[in-house]
Amino acid sequence: MTPRQATASEEALLRIFTVPEAPDSTLSVIEKNISQNLMGFLQESVVAVEKPLSEIELDFQQHRIPSAPQFVSDYADDMMKTLVAHSVHTSAPSFIGHMTSALPYFVLPLSKMMVGLNQNLVKIETSKAFTPLERQVLGMMHHLVYAEDDSFYQDWMHSANVSLGAFCSGGTVANITALWTARNQLLKADGEFKGVATQGLIKGLRHYGYDDLAILVSERGHYSLAKTADLLGIGRDNIIQIPTSNDNKVDVAQMRMAAEALARDNIKVFAIVGVAGTTETGNIDPLDELADLATELNCHFHVDAAWGGASLLSNKYRHLLKGIERADSVTIDAHKQMYVPMGAGMVIFKDPTFANAIKHHAEYILRKGSKDLGSQTLEGSRPGMAMLVHACLQVIGRDGYEILINSSLEKARYFAQLIKDQDNFELVSEPELCLLTYRYVPKQVQIAMEQARASNDLQRLTEFNHLLDGLTKFVQKRQRERGTSFVSRTRINPEAGILDIKSVVFRVVLANPLTTREILAQVLCEQTKIADQETEFLPKLLNLASRT
Amino acid sequence: MTPRQATASEEALLRIFTVPEAPDSTLSVIEKNISQNLMGFLQESVVAVEKPLSEIELDFQQHRIPSAPQFVSDYADDMMKTLVAHSVHTSAPSFIGHMTSALPYFVLPLSKMMVGLNQNLVKIETSKAFTPLERQVLGMMHHLVYAEDDSFYQDWMHSANVSLGAFCSGGTVANITALWTARNQLLKADGEFKGVATQGLIKGLRHYGYDDLAILVSERGHYSLAKTADLLGIGRDNIIQIPTSNDNKVDVAQMRMAAEALARDNIKVFAIVGVAGTTETGNIDPLDELADLATELNCHFHVDAAWGGASLLSNKYRHLLKGIERADSVTIDAHKQMYVPMGAGMVIFKDPTFANAIKHHAEYILRKGSKDLGSQTLEGSRPGMAMLVHACLQVIGRDGYEILINSSLEKARYFAQLIKDQDNFELVSEPELCLLTYRYVPKQVQIAMEQARASNDLQRLTEFNHLLDGLTKFVQKRQRERGTSFVSRTRINPEAGILDIKSVVFRVVLANPLTTREILAQVLCEQTKIADQETEFLPKLLNLASRT
Repeated sequence: MTPRQATASEEALLRIFTVPEAPDSTLSVIEKNISQNLMGFLQESVVAVEKPLSEIELDFQQHRIPSAPQFVSDYADDMMKTLVAHSVHTSAPSFIGHMTSALPYFVLPLSKMMVGLNQNLVKIETSKAFTPLERQVLGMMHHLVYAEDDSFYQDWMHSANVSLGAFCSGGTVANITALWTARNQLLKADGEFKGVATQGLIKGLRHYGYDDLAILVSERGHYSLAKTADLLGIGRDNIIQIPTSNDNKVDVAQMRMAAEALARDNIKVFAIVGVAGTTETGNIDPLDELADLATELNCHFHVDAAWGGASLLSNKYRHLLKGIERADSVTIDAHKQMYVPMGAGMVIFKDPTFANAIKHHAEYILRKGSKDLGSQTLEGSRPGMAMLVHACLQVIGRDGYEILINSSLEKARYFAQLIKDQDNFELVSEPELCLLTYRYVPKQVQIAMEQARASNDLQRLTEFNHLLDGLTKFVQKRQRERGTSFVSRTRINPEAGILDIKSVVFRVVLANPLTTREILAQVLCEQTKIADQETEFLPKLLNLASRT
Repeated sequence: MTPRQATASEEALLRIFTVPEAPDSTLSVIEKNISQNLMGFLQESVVAVEKPLSEIELDFQQHRIPSAPQFVSDYADDMMKTLVAHSVHTSAPSFIGHMTSALPYFVLPLSKMMVGLNQNLVKIETSKAFTPLERQVLGMMHHLVYAEDDSFYQDWMHSANVSLGAFCSGGTVANITALWTARNQLLKADGEFKGVATQGLIKGLRHYGYDDLAILVSERGHYSLAKTADLLGIGRDNIIQIPTSNDNKVDVAQMRMAAEALARDNIKVFAIVGVAGTTETGNIDPLDELADLATELNCHFHVDAAWGGASLLSNKYRHLLKGIERADSVTIDAHKQMYVPMGAGMVIFKDPTFANAIKHHAEYILRKGSKDLGSQTLEGSRPGMAMLVHACLQVIGRDGYEILINSSLEKARYFAQLIKDQDNFELVSEPELCLLTYRYVPKQVQIAMEQARASNDLQRLTEFNHLLDGLTKFVQKRQRERGTSFVSRTRINPEAGILDIKSVVFRVVLANPLTTREILAQVLCEQTKIADQETEFLPKLLNLASRT
């Protein structure tokens, strides 16, 4: 490369860092094209174009970083074809299978602003006003859960060295942060012992005289809790999964017995976790009873409300989460039912000094006495996502969320009734919030299964469930491939109290405000059509049902 | 609320979720205003407006979520005044204090697209083409570090159940992921023992017969490593900080001795960490020697190249990181020297099966045999940040990065020389990459300190350093408050080999391509002016220097 060329390249490079001034600049034109393409994509009614992953992968084979720079416009065009066209329409009203849903459009320009400002929330020196803003959002979420009086927030919201919670990239990090803090509070410094944070788990257990630690949670607890136990050195086996009753809520009596058994083995239960909106069925544990148990056991009470926590914004339905205000810590994901883009998890602490158990400092930032947010978070450098939560809280407001959440819950109740009204569908779990599970079961199979239950013919019932497994899975996959609508699937026990079995069911989350009753009817229609044409499991099911 | 009002509100709410079609829609107008304001802000040459945090906090006092929705336009106007105006100009060419720097403008429209698509990378069902794209980016970064042959990437890049690395929200999560995996690999399932992930640390150590675990790293290691040790249950005391030699590189002989001492106490060193670009001085540990030591100790070798890793993109300077290709895992943050917005950390694994040690599954996603990325990440739901890394790799290209990185490094060498050429400044650490430290020391004080060193008058030397502490801190704070330029400060030992002391120094990171030589000269000018007017430490320093 000659010096002259280098200079030209250098100049070209500097240009990409220079504020584009003219409204008709290349970048403005590209931006307009991207916006139009994006809007076009978002308006399509399909949830995904039918193209197998193996074919999509062909566009992403190159493992060498290219040498020559590519024009932004060319790159954007390429991405429209290879990436955007084959991404998932999470905002489509017929995409009702996961918690990722539509966004209000005003977050798009605001997110561009957030990215453009490129603040780093780890410290005030790189975030300034974003720090009090994030503290305010945490204060608002704290008030939503705990409703302390005004003086509480005056005293603590902007106070150095304490925090009402922590922003996290998602609910997993929020759950980890809560249980990490709880572990450290339990095995805190005491006399000669400098605390588990400093000296580790082995010395901590030895000092306090425990043989091991455990966490109690419903069998419906999120998989991030097992990950947490692994990470914290406690081990997945020490996340004790307690059975649920038939309504998918944890059986507190069984949890108490488990705690007693652990105590006899000198294993300390350091936290119990209540689930407020299980990922698979959307049910809420009896939080008040769990709070009582936590008091009895003198342990931390965490509520994983990553998904369901947003329901606190509904005055009509927040009673469903009663007892959450007694939790020591609560996880809420704003990117689920609060309609904020991906990446906005939060953990809220009842006690503002709680997170001191994980406090850390460094020479160049997070100095003692500073208000730097990074001294009490698991993550280090973090973007200003709090701004998008702030924006939704102001622009949607309590009144807006009241409508959004109530209508989601009521739509789920409507859909549940619609399923029950069909001859060939079976509702597996009733919606408590806006999530339900069901499956396609031809009428005559339903009758035959009912008879099997009545005559306690467990073998026959098992056989039915196995065949339904195959049918449900087939329908879910085929529907996803067709791309006009999407429901997810999971494996739960549809024969609770009768059989110990897991079977595949459809899982629906009704969070998108644009999902209409017509769309719900179409989803069932489409599933019926696919099921009726299935050639392996359906004939076997019908055959089995006819053999009375 | 009457039913009629509810309908009107509902309709208004649905509108915010509906794609805005008209180019002159309210949202388009708002977006245009936000863009213009943002560009205006980004063009300002100040790094921060002088307003104390306590005053800024007054705008963020409300702890109740407002009831009534606010118009987006009003909200955006408010935020321009209260938030944007008082955020930090991390992209200002005179903001040279931290690793957060300018962004190329083309990432802004792309990031809006990324947010608008709202993909969730935890699973293919909510990310489809984004999954192969992320795998490709990890493949490219793997190739950048390890340069395996073509067949390696053909075999592994898109293979189910393995991963060439993991995307993370940042370097902290990347470091945690690497060391978590290393711990789990060490204490893996073996005979009756089901592995530390399942059974926990206590049983793992007992099974393998170790009394405790330790990690060895330079005293310059990032604070996230101590956080990692806390989180993993190992304890901060078991991050053994090894002294550095005078050039801020870890002393490998001392590390070897530390390992031997630990072995005598039956404490297993499960990982050694090499730092490739220390946060405080920017130096790179002797990676080849560390790789040798890791082989000797039969332990994991992790390189924390969160900041320095981008230098591998320079063919001219990548030799500075020689030995990194022998690391078992490497952390690289694309949001540092790769010019990607905040939130793009990565950990790269040499062995594609390495991350199996932290693999997890769930019923509704991450099923066995799937290509879902979420089964081998610490985080759960994650945004499609990989797209922005992909974009920078294509649009800037190797040729572009070559120029950007070389010019940063060469600018740092220029600035170091400029500092040395001044009478009243002292370069504390030479730039190896594009980070250096220095302080303001009046000529006569330099002479007096040199004499103190020569005569081994350690008390006098200590006194000088204490006074310089105060002066440097004053200058740094005053300069930050004035808001025309920003350098950070840290505490390191400027008298290495003579005194065991820590003293405050200025810290400069030269990553912004728009930072000119003139700006660097102005920074020194401004610091001189501020220092010359200081009334407490400067007179004492001059007085002390005059007392020979």
